[in-house]
Amino acid sequence: MLAALAKLIPLVVSLIYGDGMYFSFLITIVLMLALGSSLIMLLRKHERSMRPREGFVTVALCWIAISLFGALPPFISGVIPNYVDALFEITSGFTTTGATILHSVETLPESIVFWRGLTQWVGGMGVLILTLAILPSDDRGIYNLMRAESTGPASERIVPRIRKTAAILYAIYLSLTILMTVMLLFGGMSLFDALLHAFTTASTGGFSSRDQSVGAFQSAYIDYTVAVFLLLFSTNYALYFAAVTRKFAKIRKNTELKVFFGIIAVSTALVTVDLLRGGVFGSPAETIRHSFFQVSSSGSSTAFVTADFSQWPDFSRLVLLCLTVVGGCAGSTAGGLKVIRAVMLVKSALREIKKILHPRSVIAVHMNGQPVQDKALTGVLHYFIIYVMIVAAASLLISLFDEVGVETAITGALSMISNTGPAFGLVGPASNYSVFSQPSKIILTLTMLTGRLEIFPVLLLIVPSAWRRV
Amino acid sequence: MLAALAKLIPLVVSLIYGDGMYFSFLITIVLMLALGSSLIMLLRKHERSMRPREGFVTVALCWIAISLFGALPPFISGVIPNYVDALFEITSGFTTTGATILHSVETLPESIVFWRGLTQWVGGMGVLILTLAILPSDDRGIYNLMRAESTGPASERIVPRIRKTAAILYAIYLSLTILMTVMLLFGGMSLFDALLHAFTTASTGGFSSRDQSVGAFQSAYIDYTVAVFLLLFSTNYALYFAAVTRKFAKIRKNTELKVFFGIIAVSTALVTVDLLRGGVFGSPAETIRHSFFQVSSSGSSTAFVTADFSQWPDFSRLVLLCLTVVGGCAGSTAGGLKVIRAVMLVKSALREIKKILHPRSVIAVHMNGQPVQDKALTGVLHYFIIYVMIVAAASLLISLFDEVGVETAITGALSMISNTGPAFGLVGPASNYSVFSQPSKIILTLTMLTGRLEIFPVLLLIVPSAWRRV
Repeated sequence: MLAALAKLIPLVVSLIYGDGMYFSFLITIVLMLALGSSLIMLLRKHERSMRPREGFVTVALCWIAISLFGALPPFISGVIPNYVDALFEITSGFTTTGATILHSVETLPESIVFWRGLTQWVGGMGVLILTLAILPSDDRGIYNLMRAESTGPASERIVPRIRKTAAILYAIYLSLTILMTVMLLFGGMSLFDALLHAFTTASTGGFSSRDQSVGAFQSAYIDYTVAVFLLLFSTNYALYFAAVTRKFAKIRKNTELKVFFGIIAVSTALVTVDLLRGGVFGSPAETIRHSFFQVSSSGSSTAFVTADFSQWPDFSRLVLLCLTVVGGCAGSTAGGLKVIRAVMLVKSALREIKKILHPRSVIAVHMNGQPVQDKALTGVLHYFIIYVMIVAAASLLISLFDEVGVETAITGALSMISNTGPAFGLVGPASNYSVFSQPSKIILTLTMLTGRLEIFPVLLLIVPSAWRRV
Repeated sequence: MLAALAKLIPLVVSLIYGDGMYFSFLITIVLMLALGSSLIMLLRKHERSMRPREGFVTVALCWIAISLFGALPPFISGVIPNYVDALFEITSGFTTTGATILHSVETLPESIVFWRGLTQWVGGMGVLILTLAILPSDDRGIYNLMRAESTGPASERIVPRIRKTAAILYAIYLSLTILMTVMLLFGGMSLFDALLHAFTTASTGGFSSRDQSVGAFQSAYIDYTVAVFLLLFSTNYALYFAAVTRKFAKIRKNTELKVFFGIIAVSTALVTVDLLRGGVFGSPAETIRHSFFQVSSSGSSTAFVTADFSQWPDFSRLVLLCLTVVGGCAGSTAGGLKVIRAVMLVKSALREIKKILHPRSVIAVHMNGQPVQDKALTGVLHYFIIYVMIVAAASLLISLFDEVGVETAITGALSMISNTGPAFGLVGPASNYSVFSQPSKIILTLTMLTGRLEIFPVLLLIVPSAWRRV
């Protein structure tokens, strides 16, 4: 129902610009409201308490449903004449991936471009927030939904009252989006462009209203503004909450935050030196600007680009690939493995090496100044294995339908599960996912959803025992 | 000392063929005997019992020393004028990797070609056997050395008396090598070629005496013989021991063996269908032959080829890449992660998914009909993480020195740690590792050693606390 109401915004945009798209939004809204209200009536007759697996399955189905309906406006209007293409594009929106199959966005009707950007903003805070807003205040059920959603391994119950949390997180998200819009307006962007780029920065999605992405504006001010906001939106929102409630010690002790900014700083320095060595850009200032922008964009799993990084030297490209895999912080809109998981993997591996030297010693892994339970570490190790297996499976499946080369297949699948967008080979910044056939696009769409929902909700959909009555 | 004596064989070969290389072998032998005997005298003055870390470090240092000296004959004789190149080539031999930097082996002196092949055969059973033969029968010290060597996570003490085990394993290795030599002679190979290919098949190394590898012989009989022996040499030698001692139940229950042959069968079928679909070869018989050969070669982490698989469709290439990562069985001469680890990773991941559905249930992972300890599973999970990290680190380091493309850097590093040999991109079967600069070759040489010694012995070399006195 809420997803239907969200479409009122592009409908209004369509009326303002008179691009004739309002009818396709209207049909979709009516369809969704009708289906949504029937579903609500149906659900009212049944029990409300949720077990973990029901939470997982509900989240996965919600995302799939919202994507299926969200693809209708561009499809009905004929803007994207193939439904699979529309589904890829809109799922790429809701999952904040930012991968596209469109050859040009500048020639599209304004309302469709706006809707495309809005899907990212709506998707950004995740079905978590959407669902929190409409669900009755049954903490246990909500808690399970929340575990399934984007908060990563460190999932803490930020405040006991979940509805209140949702409101606070929404307020942070909205305030930062407004602040960014204003700052982009100062940079000379139109309101349309400013809003759109704020939407897709907030969600670390990276859909742009320009074919050349953020690079089209050719403004150092805009590049730096977007890059800095991408980092702000990739940090754990619980830390903003801590700042608002003046719990500064919590921020100071946060291992993930320190490591994330450390990774960004080191990567920027390395890529800058590598690009200078390769003489890719004219001046050092320009080099730093593009390095910082791309490190920030890839590190926050965003699709924005200011330069065709597929032309950069190998070392820089490998650094960007590593950033894509690691991703941003848990509890943010960023994708990838999440920094917290990467830190836990490295610390756990280092402990394993130490254990060989001192077999009888008991060494604890610490995060945020607290020891981490072995169970949590094992969970992260498994998450990584399954992550790798899905990338392997997706690449193999794609290669059954398309001859795009090993590099494109693997980095494309990796980019999808990390919800980043551009990758290497045929799906670099200068090209896009239109190179793939329809079956491959469906595989990639599912990979995006799997990554966005942190794997398990989507995996459980295909496990028969998840559907068995207890 | 033993490694010095091994060089007597190519010295004799040199005298037979009169290729003038005998002097470089002689110098190396004298040098090694002098150094070896001084070292033995030095060690006699010290205690003999070994802690785990000493075992690890000793194994790593032995491999490095043997490689450093093994590179002397081709370097001194001027056949490989650059020492780093010679070191790469010979380490690739001792680690049974099979990657080469030589443009043509057919123009080389016979004794050097023979030595190159012999390094693989000597390396094949590993420093384990070499060390077992010269070490006093101190079980504990030997056991630690054995753990460090190629036996993988299932490392069982095959028989309590280690010296006896060594003799038995040697006998199996030697018998199969002789059997294979005879079978290759029947296929029309010369004694030189037959011996050499038996050496490098037994060790799953894959150095050939021909520039076109096994493909040069253009014989279906030879292709199938080599492919079948590669599989025989990639199965756990403990199972041959079980067969000799008539413990057939142990073979029947062996999970790894079943999975390994399952992987080979399924991969061969998939690649065959893919190649037929792509019309790569003329006839189905030819397609099956090349598919089976390459699956067998990649699956046993061998460098042999009969066709340029870099021209094969993506799907087939990705299957080969997966085979390279998984590798052969533990307790054999094959490289890669080892099938047993791959099985444990998959089983452990599946259990993790089941645990979400049934959070309170206790589910055990079984191997060979026995439950596996969680500690062993955690060990394998860590092994995989560290494996991935080393591939990432090696690729990044290579890319600092060479612009070979992301695909070449990553698959090259992967091929080195898996001790396979050919990879994709610029290091495919039609090209070789001569594309890399000297620093990259050193990095790749270390990666081969790290992979061959199952990571930890080499990692411990660079951990300062491993060198501290207790």
